[in-house]
Amino acid sequence: MDEERTAAWWGQRAWALLSAVRARAPLVQCITNLVSMDIAANALLAAGASPAMLHCLREVPDFTPRCGAVCVNVGTLSEDWLPSMRAAASAGRPWVLDPVAAAASDFRMEACLSLLALRPAVVRGNASEILALASRSAAASSTFKGVDSTHDSGDALQAAKALARSTGAVVAVSGAVDYITDGAQVVGASNGVALMQKITATGCAVTALVAAFVAVEPSDALVAAACALAVFGLAGEIGMESAKGPASLRVHLIDALYGLDEQTVTSRVRISLQS
Amino acid sequence: MDEERTAAWWGQRAWALLSAVRARAPLVQCITNLVSMDIAANALLAAGASPAMLHCLREVPDFTPRCGAVCVNVGTLSEDWLPSMRAAASAGRPWVLDPVAAAASDFRMEACLSLLALRPAVVRGNASEILALASRSAAASSTFKGVDSTHDSGDALQAAKALARSTGAVVAVSGAVDYITDGAQVVGASNGVALMQKITATGCAVTALVAAFVAVEPSDALVAAACALAVFGLAGEIGMESAKGPASLRVHLIDALYGLDEQTVTSRVRISLQS
Amino acid sequence: MDEERTAAWWGQRAWALLSAVRARAPLVQCITNLVSMDIAANALLAAGASPAMLHCLREVPDFTPRCGAVCVNVGTLSEDWLPSMRAAASAGRPWVLDPVAAAASDFRMEACLSLLALRPAVVRGNASEILALASRSAAASSTFKGVDSTHDSGDALQAAKALARSTGAVVAVSGAVDYITDGAQVVGASNGVALMQKITATGCAVTALVAAFVAVEPSDALVAAACALAVFGLAGEIGMESAKGPASLRVHLIDALYGLDEQTVTSRVRISLQS
Repeated sequence: MDEERTAAWWGQRAWALLSAVRARAPLVQCITNLVSMDIAANALLAAGASPAMLHCLREVPDFTPRCGAVCVNVGTLSEDWLPSMRAAASAGRPWVLDPVAAAASDFRMEACLSLLALRPAVVRGNASEILALASRSAAASSTFKGVDSTHDSGDALQAAKALARSTGAVVAVSGAVDYITDGAQVVGASNGVALMQKITATGCAVTALVAAFVAVEPSDALVAAACALAVFGLAGEIGMESAKGPASLRVHLIDALYGLDEQTVTSRVRISLQS
Repeated sequence: MDEERTAAWWGQRAWALLSAVRARAPLVQCITNLVSMDIAANALLAAGASPAMLHCLREVPDFTPRCGAVCVNVGTLSEDWLPSMRAAASAGRPWVLDPVAAAASDFRMEACLSLLALRPAVVRGNASEILALASRSAAASSTFKGVDSTHDSGDALQAAKALARSTGAVVAVSGAVDYITDGAQVVGASNGVALMQKITATGCAVTALVAAFVAVEPSDALVAAACALAVFGLAGEIGMESAKGPASLRVHLIDALYGLDEQTVTSRVRISLQS
Repeated sequence: MDEERTAAWWGQRAWALLSAVRARAPLVQCITNLVSMDIAANALLAAGASPAMLHCLREVPDFTPRCGAVCVNVGTLSEDWLPSMRAAASAGRPWVLDPVAAAASDFRMEACLSLLALRPAVVRGNASEILALASRSAAASSTFKGVDSTHDSGDALQAAKALARSTGAVVAVSGAVDYITDGAQVVGASNGVALMQKITATGCAVTALVAAFVAVEPSDALVAAACALAVFGLAGEIGMESAKGPASLRVHLIDALYGLDEQTVTSRVRISLQS
């Protein structure tokens, strides 16, 4: 990574990409889980993107090619939605994968692996999910415990790098520090507050935001993903200033995402090169 | 339209219909998109109606005839839900159609046209959706851009009138001013704030509210639709007084809808005859 | 019931079970309706549990046995989800049933009865639902009116006792006072505020919370259900202190559930033996 990628450089990039989302309002198709529909759509709107929660296989050929990016999330996977996910991922648009609870079942792991083969621009998950995907076996995830992570993001860093190298995707591991890697470079993004984990589907929402950022910066998914994660985390930090619990944090986070200004983004985004 | 339909007359009508919803708690079946379920149900409850989000084809014969009105929304259309939509629309109850993103695909446009043939009492959409429906061809919608409108509601007024005449439905076009027409008369409703567009599914929620108002005033869908749109917009205006962004606006809007009183409704509803 | 089950005893039990949920974070699989996904997941997270909204039949054999408890809710029942509900209910974990609008259709009533035969640990519904289930016939529910109850919880008490005896389940009837019975003993829980009924899916959320409490106290479902209902109602009471309507109540309720402390729970939970 270049010498000049200072904290200030990252702050400027994050602001530039958020501004581009606001200016271009990229259409982001989300084939996402039923729990996350509301918060993901609202996060996209608050950031300036145009969400479209279409999941019908028959609509993919007409609709998906018009989108700036696609977000596929397997949180409430079912057999009838998987063909739509595959079709949308194959429609020629940049797309991101959220492998929610990848190790929940053999069916889900196989579905995630089949999606990975369709070359997502970015895979974003928690440490447990990335570890499970990298080991490519639900059986290996002996400590599996639902959709919440039982590993630190640092634990999964080597797995993330391996997964990035084997798939060609940028891999982002969420945690106290988010790590984003293309298999060679590793960037850390450390915005956010712990209470965000007590709001359902915040991870899904940030994956949708990654898709919006990729839509306006398709040529550099590493930068797009890092900036999206940092911007969302920053909105959480600002929201936390007024929050009294997880539900008010959710409200204030979305409000803050909508209201972010240049001074705030450039001065408070915390992204740095790790290796 | 009669001479006496003054601003004061509309204010009184809006209050009378909202009061009727509160008093009778009409059962409103919603076969609606997955994104809008939460906000639509909460808007109905806040207005005093009784929402029922049933979409199972096998339940329609038993359940739908008991409802005061039905709301059909194609936002997350799928092949397996369409037969239920058609059956509920054919069950003999007044019903309203929200043709979300009608031009998203040929499949969706055909579904919308087949639903239109089942004679909805009201069709409510944004300008792009009404234009696309009126032209009856996705191909004609060259500026299609997802679920968000890229046209002003005034642009779609002639299309709305034509659509109303050809279908027999009242057609409502949401925008900075909402236009409601039966093909001859045009009413404008100008409550609301722009930030409501940054909350996902507010359009879907107001369509559900239109269904509740139609349930208590089935003989005059034009008045019912205009009053529902104005009341929802007014709740947004009041909510905006306390909002700091789209997520807090959503909270305050629903709270305001629940708390509306006669003085506020009669003095602040803005509906007028346009032609 | 033992003499020593005083108000103070119940307060201590409620706190002990909430503390156990926070400490153990039981994995709770919810096969629940589409409207309730968001609030149910957020209520579980706020209480300290780990929600998992998986509904795919192929995942049940791998996933459900790892769960602490299962929550099945028929609010948006469909033919394709029912086999998953049955499979999850048969997976050997304690499970709870929410028979939303049981009398909405013959199909739904039959589905509820077939689920009841799979021996839920707890059935939680409103008075109309419990009456309909107990009478085992949709036809008997002549006053059926959607998902909102038209009966007091007291009206349904005899039906609840009969249903508990015939099914072996603990039956909880929500209302101004919640009644919880195993067919012999009846416990009343009287926390909560009326405005909670104006928030969609609060009933579904509390059923999910019952599942979390059953996960940490599987050997005494009567106590687990009563404590969960009281704790959720108490969160509503505290939320009400800051609420200005149903939407802000929802936010403050979840915040309050997250923030409950020992002093508040032990002093304000209102549970008592009724008979």
